[in-house]
Amino acid sequence: MNVEVCFTPHQLSLYPVQNSIVVVIDILRATSSICVGFAYGVDKIYPVESIEECVNLIQKHGFIGAAERNGEKLPGFVLGNSPFDYMNPALSGKTIALTTTNGTHAIYTAKKEKAKKIVIGAFTNQQSLLEWLLAQSEDVLLLCAGWKDKFNLEDTLFAGSMICLLKQHGYYSESDTAYASELLYVQAKDHIHEFLKNSSHAKRLAHLDIQRDIDFCLQSNLASVVPVFEQDYLYNADTPQPICNSLKMYAQ
Amino acid sequence: MNVEVCFTPHQLSLYPVQNSIVVVIDILRATSSICVGFAYGVDKIYPVESIEECVNLIQKHGFIGAAERNGEKLPGFVLGNSPFDYMNPALSGKTIALTTTNGTHAIYTAKKEKAKKIVIGAFTNQQSLLEWLLAQSEDVLLLCAGWKDKFNLEDTLFAGSMICLLKQHGYYSESDTAYASELLYVQAKDHIHEFLKNSSHAKRLAHLDIQRDIDFCLQSNLASVVPVFEQDYLYNADTPQPICNSLKMYAQ
Repeated sequence: MNVEVCFTPHQLSLYPVQNSIVVVIDILRATSSICVGFAYGVDKIYPVESIEECVNLIQKHGFIGAAERNGEKLPGFVLGNSPFDYMNPALSGKTIALTTTNGTHAIYTAKKEKAKKIVIGAFTNQQSLLEWLLAQSEDVLLLCAGWKDKFNLEDTLFAGSMICLLKQHGYYSESDTAYASELLYVQAKDHIHEFLKNSSHAKRLAHLDIQRDIDFCLQSNLASVVPVFEQDYLYNADTPQPICNSLKMYAQ
Repeated sequence: MNVEVCFTPHQLSLYPVQNSIVVVIDILRATSSICVGFAYGVDKIYPVESIEECVNLIQKHGFIGAAERNGEKLPGFVLGNSPFDYMNPALSGKTIALTTTNGTHAIYTAKKEKAKKIVIGAFTNQQSLLEWLLAQSEDVLLLCAGWKDKFNLEDTLFAGSMICLLKQHGYYSESDTAYASELLYVQAKDHIHEFLKNSSHAKRLAHLDIQRDIDFCLQSNLASVVPVFEQDYLYNADTPQPICNSLKMYAQ
């Protein structure tokens, strides 16, 4: 099977979307936070592109609202884009309407381009994601959400780490995006926090004091979940697991 | 001054083109070959997007035709995309009409997006390019031609090398494309041939037996030229220099 990397939703139409499972990656912070939500027992998440759609879903269906733009939680919404917002047992069984700057846009771009399947990836659910992908036995397209349609480093590093893992299981890749992602990940993996300190996203979010969020989002396998997109919403396609102790510790 | 990297012409509209000097980079092989042509005294090169336009210019004005698609020289044209085609003293004073898969497309995308100035960059003319850029004292946007609107590695490595040089002269950069290009270049610079062996372009062109071309295009500073795009054509904005001995040796 083939694994490919697309650096931004802006370029997705150039890739073989319809024949692939598209893994949507927005490490800082949408896809990391979505995984935490499902680990805490969220029932469904409706990702939407606009704030208006988000408000409509809240008003019509009583969903819990989550909204972020340019790194900041929008006033009037219960949740933002921080994984710590989602570490709340009261979310168990609930449905969330979510809109973010990049992550939800990437999900909808994959939908518009008719992805075969769409799944959410982050360091937080990496092992569960890997096992699920191997069970599907399909070509994989790793879609980095980037920042406003441009390349970003943290999503690319996660894509690189997935390339390394999938290659160990017989996947191949011939593209330069995959090769560069892998090279960057291999260079970064032993000091990934340091590596990302010079990234644009870390600088952009520095004034928001989210270092705790960044540290969390770079931790692997805290959430045994596989958020799959079906029709209009995400659900956890994995067998529900108790919240792992390492994740519980963060909530304290 | 700022230096920025755009990985493909497909994304150029997202970048501050109108305020920047755009450096068009197509290492394998258009911009490397253009530099060789000017080092051999070519008067002007008209880059055009289609084969039809190229044929028109040849018929109307008697220009020398150069055409490449998918790595191969097209039948009926005097020149292809190999730098060795341009190591010919008979080209001195002549005008060429050139169309290639990626390089000429990148030049025209920069023109359409209203770049402040457009200049050609390659390892072959790196030092001359650097000196010219420093003299201009403007923001720089390094535009990788890529492969059919996708990212490629060799153009990115050259962009990374330019970032390193420009930073030594006080330029700054805040984007992740610039940061990733620099990281990849620093990782590759001591074994760049080896590094590129796994790239998609090297694999794609392997059947064409152009290893000699690839080796040549990775050599620095064989051509003291600065090909600048003005209206519809490229000319050498640098003071004409005698062909350097290292370049002459290749022609033998």
